[in-house]
Amino acid sequence: MDDFDYNTIDKAYNIIKDYVVETPLVTNDYINNLLGSKVFFKLENIQNTGSFKFRGATYKLLKLSDTQKKNGVVAYSSGNHAQAVAYSSLLRNINAKIVMPSNAPKIKIENTKNYKAKVVLYDPLKESREEIAERIAKDENRTIIRPYDDHFVIAGQGTSGKEISDQLDSISVVPDIYLCCCGGGGLIAGTSTYLKYKFPKIKSYSVEPKNFEDTKLSLEKGYIYRNKDNNFSICDALLAMQPGNLTFPINKKNLTGGLVVTDNEVKKIIPFLAEHLKIIIEPGGAVAAAALLNNKIDVKNKNVVVMISGGNIDLDMFLSL
Amino acid sequence: MDDFDYNTIDKAYNIIKDYVVETPLVTNDYINNLLGSKVFFKLENIQNTGSFKFRGATYKLLKLSDTQKKNGVVAYSSGNHAQAVAYSSLLRNINAKIVMPSNAPKIKIENTKNYKAKVVLYDPLKESREEIAERIAKDENRTIIRPYDDHFVIAGQGTSGKEISDQLDSISVVPDIYLCCCGGGGLIAGTSTYLKYKFPKIKSYSVEPKNFEDTKLSLEKGYIYRNKDNNFSICDALLAMQPGNLTFPINKKNLTGGLVVTDNEVKKIIPFLAEHLKIIIEPGGAVAAAALLNNKIDVKNKNVVVMISGGNIDLDMFLSL
Repeated sequence: MDDFDYNTIDKAYNIIKDYVVETPLVTNDYINNLLGSKVFFKLENIQNTGSFKFRGATYKLLKLSDTQKKNGVVAYSSGNHAQAVAYSSLLRNINAKIVMPSNAPKIKIENTKNYKAKVVLYDPLKESREEIAERIAKDENRTIIRPYDDHFVIAGQGTSGKEISDQLDSISVVPDIYLCCCGGGGLIAGTSTYLKYKFPKIKSYSVEPKNFEDTKLSLEKGYIYRNKDNNFSICDALLAMQPGNLTFPINKKNLTGGLVVTDNEVKKIIPFLAEHLKIIIEPGGAVAAAALLNNKIDVKNKNVVVMISGGNIDLDMFLSL
Repeated sequence: MDDFDYNTIDKAYNIIKDYVVETPLVTNDYINNLLGSKVFFKLENIQNTGSFKFRGATYKLLKLSDTQKKNGVVAYSSGNHAQAVAYSSLLRNINAKIVMPSNAPKIKIENTKNYKAKVVLYDPLKESREEIAERIAKDENRTIIRPYDDHFVIAGQGTSGKEISDQLDSISVVPDIYLCCCGGGGLIAGTSTYLKYKFPKIKSYSVEPKNFEDTKLSLEKGYIYRNKDNNFSICDALLAMQPGNLTFPINKKNLTGGLVVTDNEVKKIIPFLAEHLKIIIEPGGAVAAAALLNNKIDVKNKNVVVMISGGNIDLDMFLSL
């Protein structure tokens, strides 16, 4: 699939559209007045399994051969891709095994088990999840469902960008700026591809938590840069250590730059959006909104699309914020 | 306006559509599987000011004469109509005074003040809010913006039903059942009118908190029935003591019957929908979902529309649930 473009995403959309929620694109007077701009929040926290990951997982599973489906799949994930692969597999009677870090949010581990997947916990300080998954795949003849470095997965996530385009079209709005969270970069690679095709002048920015700004730095350096080890962020969904080999070339082509937010900036935004948008967002899902509302970029008089990517936050943490 | 019908609502929609949020209609695999039906939640908690009340208030204010606008308005409300009238007035430079019970949720009183309205608190056990508002209207030459017994207000609330109809049409779904909260009955009167016009076979039900089921009992008796005094419910938005003089004849024509939920049934649903839909709902906004999820009606294999009417809940209460 050398020719990854909007067409790849349209194909994915036609195949998965009956299985995914067309998530809302909402605006809010209070926030618009506060910023002097018009902001559209794409609510992927309302997607099945609580994040956009259900799109890519669904598309990838639908593209497996019958033999691959029969042999089962294995995935590694801090939690959102885990739940997405588990539930999508459950719906298709595919046996799923998921490698998850032992310190993943409880809600994510519990949900993944509830979707009947076999969960294999590992210690993220001592073991490599990729290696564990590769071994399981080899030993048990399972297909690996990668979280982002797979063109089918990127195309699936990109269908959220197609929906945004159609939703903006229907109200005759041309977006100026797109802000999207970035871990391995699958969501922003897919969505920015579609948005750039529909709105060629749009400026798209990755948003990452501080100390995990590998995509920002890679964009600046022009090559794949790896984060320093032993850092921490509450944005558990965005802790990929470096851009993907497939996602980075796409993002390099599409993105204007990268923004960075601190955990404290994210923490303030979660109750703020609970109050004003009446929605529940996980830390990783809130970074783009945190960049917007902490003035990391000038949005005055602009039409801005902000990705809200997921809502799987432990109730303990939500309450503590 | 003797001929209140879908046409009245279409007119309202054309006038207010640029000022209100087209709120999402969302479905969720987990809940659909749980019930064996297809449920569509209309998220008015995402509306400006956090409830559907912004629709009716906006339409009514736009219908005032210039002299009326200059003289200002007065409204009485436990909180959602208060915020809606306050913010809608602020946007149009109309002076607003709002009569609110002293035990209204803090978030509703604070928001109303933040929208620059003058708040007049009263003791709901000793005073009548209607009388206070009538006196202010007379003394200060203000126009009363009634919470439901006004055809312009009912038509404004009904625009949510027009959106539901269009949203269902776009995915070729014909709804079988409509569940909607009911206080004075403005929202259900407006929305059920539009839904019945578009989907003549739909069965619409009011949902009320226990001890405040005046609409259910009035529908059964065929005349306006008043609740007994001195009861309590956490559903602060739904404590109207009897159906409205304008809303009841409409609801009598449209509704199949009334359902009732207890406070405990509502309390369980708020964290459930926070977990599965990732949204924040106030008690009064959750009664229709509570009726659905506590099996107050058989929905097996049916397409069900559930109104989520508002999200203005005090954080203290949300956390305690």
